[in-house]
This record gives sequence, structure tokens and C-alpha cells, in this order.
Amino acid sequence: MAKLISGSDYAPKGKPNPVVKKGEFVFAALGLYHGHIYGMCNGLIEAGGVLKTYYDSDPKYMENFRRNFPDARPAVSENEILNDKEIVLVAGATMTNERCALGLRVMSAGKDYFTDKAPLTTLEQLAQAREMVKKTSKKYACYYSERIHVESAVFAGQLVEQGAIGRVVQVIGFGPHRLSAPNRPGWFFIKKNYGGILCDIGSHNMEQILYYTGAKNGRVVSSHIANYNHSQFPELDDFGDAHIVLDNNATGYFRVDWFTPDGLQTWGDGRLFILGTEGFIEQRKYMNLGVKGSSGGHVFMANGKEETHFHVEGKVGFPFFGQLILDCLNRTENAMTQAHAFKAAELSVIAQNNATVLEATQK
Amino acid sequence: MAKLISGSDYAPKGKPNPVVKKGEFVFAALGLYHGHIYGMCNGLIEAGGVLKTYYDSDPKYMENFRRNFPDARPAVSENEILNDKEIVLVAGATMTNERCALGLRVMSAGKDYFTDKAPLTTLEQLAQAREMVKKTSKKYACYYSERIHVESAVFAGQLVEQGAIGRVVQVIGFGPHRLSAPNRPGWFFIKKNYGGILCDIGSHNMEQILYYTGAKNGRVVSSHIANYNHSQFPELDDFGDAHIVLDNNATGYFRVDWFTPDGLQTWGDGRLFILGTEGFIEQRKYMNLGVKGSSGGHVFMANGKEETHFHVEGKVGFPFFGQLILDCLNRTENAMTQAHAFKAAELSVIAQNNATVLEATQK
Repeated sequence: MAKLISGSDYAPKGKPNPVVKKGEFVFAALGLYHGHIYGMCNGLIEAGGVLKTYYDSDPKYMENFRRNFPDARPAVSENEILNDKEIVLVAGATMTNERCALGLRVMSAGKDYFTDKAPLTTLEQLAQAREMVKKTSKKYACYYSERIHVESAVFAGQLVEQGAIGRVVQVIGFGPHRLSAPNRPGWFFIKKNYGGILCDIGSHNMEQILYYTGAKNGRVVSSHIANYNHSQFPELDDFGDAHIVLDNNATGYFRVDWFTPDGLQTWGDGRLFILGTEGFIEQRKYMNLGVKGSSGGHVFMANGKEETHFHVEGKVGFPFFGQLILDCLNRTENAMTQAHAFKAAELSVIAQNNATVLEATQK
Repeated sequence: MAKLISGSDYAPKGKPNPVVKKGEFVFAALGLYHGHIYGMCNGLIEAGGVLKTYYDSDPKYMENFRRNFPDARPAVSENEILNDKEIVLVAGATMTNERCALGLRVMSAGKDYFTDKAPLTTLEQLAQAREMVKKTSKKYACYYSERIHVESAVFAGQLVEQGAIGRVVQVIGFGPHRLSAPNRPGWFFIKKNYGGILCDIGSHNMEQILYYTGAKNGRVVSSHIANYNHSQFPELDDFGDAHIVLDNNATGYFRVDWFTPDGLQTWGDGRLFILGTEGFIEQRKYMNLGVKGSSGGHVFMANGKEETHFHVEGKVGFPFFGQLILDCLNRTENAMTQAHAFKAAELSVIAQNNATVLEATQK
């Protein structure tokens, strides 16, 4: 059987749409542990950023990265990047529990930070990150890819913004993922490193719930984690779910899991359902279940006027990256506010910390 | 605009598949308030039952029923039915909060009872119903139509039974409904009468969560109700959701609402998602969203071997009704156990009673 695709291979390419002239926004990649770093760099380059250099202490990651970005130059150390005055932003995808420490070093060096999700794994790290933002006025941006790097998610946001379904009262997300255990590094299975499933892939969903409901805050009313079927990885949560009430009285619920079966056409049937007072939206992000060879980018909407299937692949693009570049240059917050990025992380960590552990064995 | 279809008009017809000879199972209809009574009677007749007579104190309901079942004879009173020794079962769809009292009279008269869902609205009624079952050994069966009278639901149950997706670890249900307020009777908007949204349409989902997970009991860990957008009906819950942990450590979540927009091709995009350790199943019960003129009966499954779309409309039938008839005649419990029918009602009432009320206005 061919190598099955997993979510860590997800690095979409969009259309070049530069918001700056060449050389106006120079960045580096530091910490190449997770495949998301490719999507992060792709997005910034398409928006006009110049990837000058990159570094990881592991030669294997360096070699992979070199093949993908031959125009960039390998650095010999983290410090080479931190001391390079031309570099204004560092993109990083190190181990999840080291992302905050890396960010603190990057921001202390006077640069903005753009980390893979989850951006941190503990409330202590979050407090440090908030403090560093206050101290340096630098950005601690996060690659919540399941919204910002998925065209159906971008388009759904535009529909909501236009009022197509009225006031959003609920968001439900499914984040199933293929485990592909042999292709995952060892740290991926150590809870301290990855932070638990609600912190890790849950953060995507928490961010989306906050975003589509337009809420500033929320409360986790119940959450669970389990390792139902992977006793060979005792620290893996193969399942998690959480139920949230937002500060504007909308509700949210999500389920994340590592149960995508090998018969599925891609790594996960990611879905997002947005219920409004005047209609609803469903996203089928990466595939259209039961339709052979389907691509991603499916948005379904029903409201008082119509029931529609939009196929937006290749049509919407990823405005986040250009906005982030301009935010860094102009010190604005159009791509995503710092408060929002941190709140999604905070609620994910709280959902994880407070989760009831369900035993694998049936009572 | 033509009258929009609402869920109360849902009364599917299957293929005749009699399990008894004509006259071996004679039943009556008593309490014709909800359109579900048509589906209930259709199902029993297709399975070989003879609908002898029917009664409701409201002449309007009597007239509607006569047009649908011209072979049955109108009774002049409830007592005429209760005293008819030939009648072994009474099917009823009176107001929700009167369903238990009617059942107690039916069972006291020595007959089995088959009520529309929700079968009751309070824990006191439940205690009375359980007591009456104990005392009389009669059945208090319930028409949880979203599973027993929906072919995708029946077929999904067969797939789970065959082990096609391994052990079921989670069930998520969406029960959106079109309000069609002008076509609803007044009692429908009085909470004491309909019992609240989690008791009413929530009971369908609670039953399915128990059924597909194979659980005997569960615990409601969080639930909410709201009236987000129907201030003209102050006692209507237009939204409800609930998060459940089952006694076998699976989880369940459902959302029910009255927000189906007029642009949708039918009264509700009912869905059910079953997550197993070896695969998953999605039901699109009444339509396939975004596909014009789609019918119901869509089941999608992915497991280690395949990803498949089954269209089972007209292919699976509704075995519940024949099983119920035989259960009544043979005093067995193959259609549904009494414990299961009551447990679904109990958890629904608990979810409703303990629900946090979300205010319509945004904070």
C-alpha cells in the first residue's frame, strides 16, 4: 500500500498574491519538527515574503526543508537567525511544548513570531507569552491552519460576515485525523510534548468556534479525553471532545480523534457546521465523503432563499498571510488579533486540563 | 409559496410485510394530536396489524384521520376503545404531557400502549409508567421515529451490528426541524405541554445515542436550551444541546433546533454520525445537502477497506413494526426493550430539567 497521507503532510499551495515588494518582508524558519512549517512558509512566500534562512538542530529536518525551499539558505545556529537584523519574523514548528520558549527568544530578539498550532501547552506558558507581548509589543501569531489555510473555512467566514445565515448561534467541528503512527516522530506520543489532543488538534476547533461565533471569550462546560484503541501508545489521546458556551450565549462543540480509517480517500473528513438564526453552513474541508476522488473546498449553505453547494477550491485563496505581513509592517491586527490567538489556546488548554478521562475498557 | 413541509408531516410508507395473518393483531388509535400517528399506524398496518377504530375528542383530527384510514371505523369515545376486548394495542399521539396518563389508562385496560415520542415529560410520569409496567406486564412502547422509521438509521444499525466500524465510541446527532408555526397547534408552544425541546425532539437523539453505542445507561454532563429568535413564542425552546457519557465509556452529543430555513428542500437536514474504532458512518436521513431533489436514505461509511455511499431508500424497510407486533403476541422484547425506551425518555427529561438557559440577547 502506498504511504497514506496524514494531516502533517497538509501544506496547501495557493496563488501568488504579493502584498509587498520583494525584500520588504524577510523571514526565517526555526524549528522544523512538524510538516506544518511547509504550509506556513508557502503562505508567507505567496504573499510576498522572502524566506531568507532556516535552522533546526536535526539534520534530517534540515535536509527535507532544503529540498522544499532550495532558494533559502541553511543557517548554522538559532542565534544566526535571532541576530540577523534583516529578519523581521520567525516562523516555527518545533515540539509543541517548546513553542512558547522559542517564541520568547524570538520576541526578545525583537522579531515577530509565527508558530504552528498549538502555540503552547500550559497556562504558565500562556502567561509568559502574554507578558512578553506586553513587554516587547511583538506578535505571537499562530497558524490555526484548519481555518486560515482552508478555502472552505475562509469562504464560510465571508458568508457569515455578509450575514447570509443571520446571527451565528452554534458551531460544531469534527477534526478526525489519520494516525499513520510509523511516520510520526517519538515526541508526538509523549503527552508532555504534544500537550494532549484537546490542546493539540483541539486548538484548531476552539479557534474556529471563537471566530465563527464572533465571541471574545468562552467557558468549557464539559470535555473528555480517551485512549480507546491505542494501548501501544499509552500517552496518546486518540479521542477528545469539548462543549463550550461563548460569552455571547452561542454554543460550540467539537470532537477530535485519530481514528481516520485507511479506506478513506484522505487523512481526515474534517467538517464544520455553523448554525445561524437564518440558515446554516456546512464545510467539508478536505473531501466530499462518498464521492470518489473528490477534492477539498466544499461549502454548503441553506438560508431563506436557497440551498447551495459552493466548490471553492482554488477560488478563494488565503488572505491571512498577506494580512499578517502587513500587520507586522504596520503594527495592525487584521489577520487575527493577539487576544483571539491566545484565547483559543487558553480554552484548549483548559479543556485538556479539566477533561474527564474515559477508560478504554468498557465498564 | 406552497406550504412548506414540516417534520410533523413525516409519515413514511414502506412495503407491506405482514408478520401475522389478518385479524391476529387488532389495534386502535387514540389521541390524534400529532401527525406522527399516521406513521405509527402505517407501520403497524404494513406489518399485518388491523386498525379497527380510532378516537379523538377534536372533530378536526377525527376528520383528517378518516380521510387517511377510510377502512377504520371512528369510535364515539375513548372508553369504547378501552373496553373493546379485540383490541390488543392502542397507538396514541396525544399532547406530550398527557401521553403517560393515556398510557396508564390503556395498560390498566389490559392493552399494550404504543405512544408517539416523547413518551412522557416528567420524572414523576416516568415513575408511574415504570410502576404500571411492573403491575400489568403490559408494554409502554415508543415511536422514536428518527431511528425506527428511517431506513438509513435501520441500515446503519445493521452495519454497526456486523462490526463494520469496530467498537462504537461516539455518536453525534443533529435534529434540525422546520418550525412552520402557522401549521402548529397552540399546545405545541406551551412548555408544560410539549416538555421542552430536549425532552421532545431530543428524545429521538438520546434514543439513538443509547442504541448505537449499545449502552444501557448514561449521564448528561452538560445541556443547554435557548429561545434565540422566536420571542413571539416565549415558551418555545428553539435550540437545545446535550453532552452525554455512556455507561460503557462512549460519548454522545446532540443538537436540536427549529431553525430549518425555508430555502432547504425538506423539513430538516437530519444527520447522525457514528464513530467507531475501525471506521465511521454518517447518515443523511431525509436529504443529501446541496443535491437538488435528493431523497432520503443516505448512509456513508468508511473503514479499513473502503469508503462507500449506500443509498438505501426503499431497500431496507422498517422491521420495528413487525417485531413490535410479535413482541406483543409473544411477550418478547425484540423491537426494543422497555428498559431502553424508558432510559431514553429519562435522560431526555434530565437533560431538559438540568439545562442551562442561554439568553437570547448577546451579553
